[in-house]
Amino acid sequence: MTVSSAPGKVYLFGEHAVVYGEPAVPCAVERRATVTVAARDDDHVRVRAEDLSLNGFTVEYRGSTGDRPDVDVPAPLVEAAMGYIDAAVDQAREAADAPDAGFDITVESDIPLGAGLGSSAAVVVAGIDAATRELGVELAPREIAERAYRAEHEVQDGQASRADTFCSAMGGAVRVEGDDCRTIDAPPLPFVIGFDGGAGDTGALVSGVRALREEYDFAADTVSTVGDIVRRGEELLAESDPDADEPPEELLSELGRFMNFNHGLLEALGVSSRSLDSMVWAAREAGAYGAKLTGAGGGGCIVSLDPTPETQTALRFTPGCEDAFRAELATEGVRVEVPPEADAEAEAETDPEREGDGGNSA
Amino acid sequence: MTVSSAPGKVYLFGEHAVVYGEPAVPCAVERRATVTVAARDDDHVRVRAEDLSLNGFTVEYRGSTGDRPDVDVPAPLVEAAMGYIDAAVDQAREAADAPDAGFDITVESDIPLGAGLGSSAAVVVAGIDAATRELGVELAPREIAERAYRAEHEVQDGQASRADTFCSAMGGAVRVEGDDCRTIDAPPLPFVIGFDGGAGDTGALVSGVRALREEYDFAADTVSTVGDIVRRGEELLAESDPDADEPPEELLSELGRFMNFNHGLLEALGVSSRSLDSMVWAAREAGAYGAKLTGAGGGGCIVSLDPTPETQTALRFTPGCEDAFRAELATEGVRVEVPPEADAEAEAETDPEREGDGGNSA
Repeated sequence: MTVSSAPGKVYLFGEHAVVYGEPAVPCAVERRATVTVAARDDDHVRVRAEDLSLNGFTVEYRGSTGDRPDVDVPAPLVEAAMGYIDAAVDQAREAADAPDAGFDITVESDIPLGAGLGSSAAVVVAGIDAATRELGVELAPREIAERAYRAEHEVQDGQASRADTFCSAMGGAVRVEGDDCRTIDAPPLPFVIGFDGGAGDTGALVSGVRALREEYDFAADTVSTVGDIVRRGEELLAESDPDADEPPEELLSELGRFMNFNHGLLEALGVSSRSLDSMVWAAREAGAYGAKLTGAGGGGCIVSLDPTPETQTALRFTPGCEDAFRAELATEGVRVEVPPEADAEAEAETDPEREGDGGNSA
Repeated sequence: MTVSSAPGKVYLFGEHAVVYGEPAVPCAVERRATVTVAARDDDHVRVRAEDLSLNGFTVEYRGSTGDRPDVDVPAPLVEAAMGYIDAAVDQAREAADAPDAGFDITVESDIPLGAGLGSSAAVVVAGIDAATRELGVELAPREIAERAYRAEHEVQDGQASRADTFCSAMGGAVRVEGDDCRTIDAPPLPFVIGFDGGAGDTGALVSGVRALREEYDFAADTVSTVGDIVRRGEELLAESDPDADEPPEELLSELGRFMNFNHGLLEALGVSSRSLDSMVWAAREAGAYGAKLTGAGGGGCIVSLDPTPETQTALRFTPGCEDAFRAELATEGVRVEVPPEADAEAEAETDPEREGDGGNSA
């Protein structure tokens, strides 16, 4: 049995504009998906999902995605969740050159599903890591990111972004521009997240921005302006001390101003919503340095910066906010929580490089 | 005794950006200030204000602004209201070459004060019109606009915009770019206004935008983008039929989209507020074609487009919205309601040009 975990993410800046070649800065946050994998003697895959906002389900099926199980939860959700796990299993089998490997898989997650926090990417990243380790193969985080991207790409019919999987695998703050993904230094940012319990229709939201951008120059310019904010935000992060115990107030203050501005431009592009704006204002009035929607918008989550408990409290009392939680920058990306049983102790000791590779913690 | 009235205004597009040379399109709306003026035998001015959110006050003073009366309402409000009336009286005396003229003046208004709806401009415009007529002089609306601007300029220490006074004097939709003001054709737009009962600090809001714009290129670009929306919006209005009984749905739909976009950019520039956003979302969810804050922001009013009663109803049930009302485009600007008593009948008959000049109604 092997257990791996991987973090979810928020967009500090740049969602939507990233689709048109502008840079974006997603940040991994300390909310994780944990995947437990145990090799089986046959080629079956048995999946148990917990805490996925599905009330849990258990299904057993053969290795191919051809056979659909008969379970008592809405089919699209099962299809979606199983699609990701299937694709992760395929990637692990390929990486370990073990096409007939079977697994018992348990998925747990404290990342709200479908809320723009990268829950599916975290499940896929952690799943590939745990399954390959269980087969005796250790992949570098960058390769896990690449394989997780391929898995998401397959499930999402070619619409996947590299941002979520790269960020989840590597941890910390990352910079994405087209296919170019890299980690960047960032101090420990005090993220507070508000979740309205819903989710926007990502496809419709992306199409909406595309249509506006194609029809109106002022919308195309607004997309470019989002890119300019991201570039200025990157400069701020680059000038800051990533080893500081806490970020200086001037940095938080300026990042917050940029987040507020970015949110306004997203609202102009038509991807905010009443509940998102309501949470954004609650955070700002509670003293957060800044607040913005994160992800596709239309519902889901906002992210704010506040080292104090004020914003979380304010969000909890905001109508339309279903959940509010602190989620600091996750400096570690994918990591093994319980190494394979065979030689657990030896693995844990001979793996210093592997641990350090996943994040920019000391 | 002479009675004149003049309308308030909303910004269809372009507030704040207009400060930096971008065009803006304010529109006069059917909420009016009404000023009654009766010449006195001495050089005193007696002012009675009603429905000015001041609970009414009556003061009597000599013609100069040197002597302040002792009344039982907050001094700054009296100073402000009297400052505008003083300045209007000065302009009327100058225009009629009657420096020692005294008046009994009654001011009534159904335009919320300090809410960004141009209440002071409407009072000044109607006041100059009524006072000059009472002295036997008729000014063209353009001259009233010019004198009202000078009056506001004096009271506001040089910070006044020409937009409010020009729009109130001329009526209809107007285009303002720097000192260049002109009327433009527009169909009867179905404005619905929501008012949060408050008012932002205009000076601080304007300074905030200025500081952002000077410090960040992305903010300067956003101000320019507001100008681009205004130019596209003008084109839409120019292509429409101003004599249509009601505007076509496609026009309302596109204007609404532009209003929504403009609002997002204003929110990016930091001049929206929780209550304004809340009203904007209520209007949109009620089916309005579009909604945005109007004026300086930070609190005050939103304007939306909805020919149905839905938006007004939704706003009435929106927490934080103190008043919601319909205010169609006011095609007439300043107008005499009761001509001077001496030759009232003659005046009313020989004044067709005067009436038609103030608006673009048939």
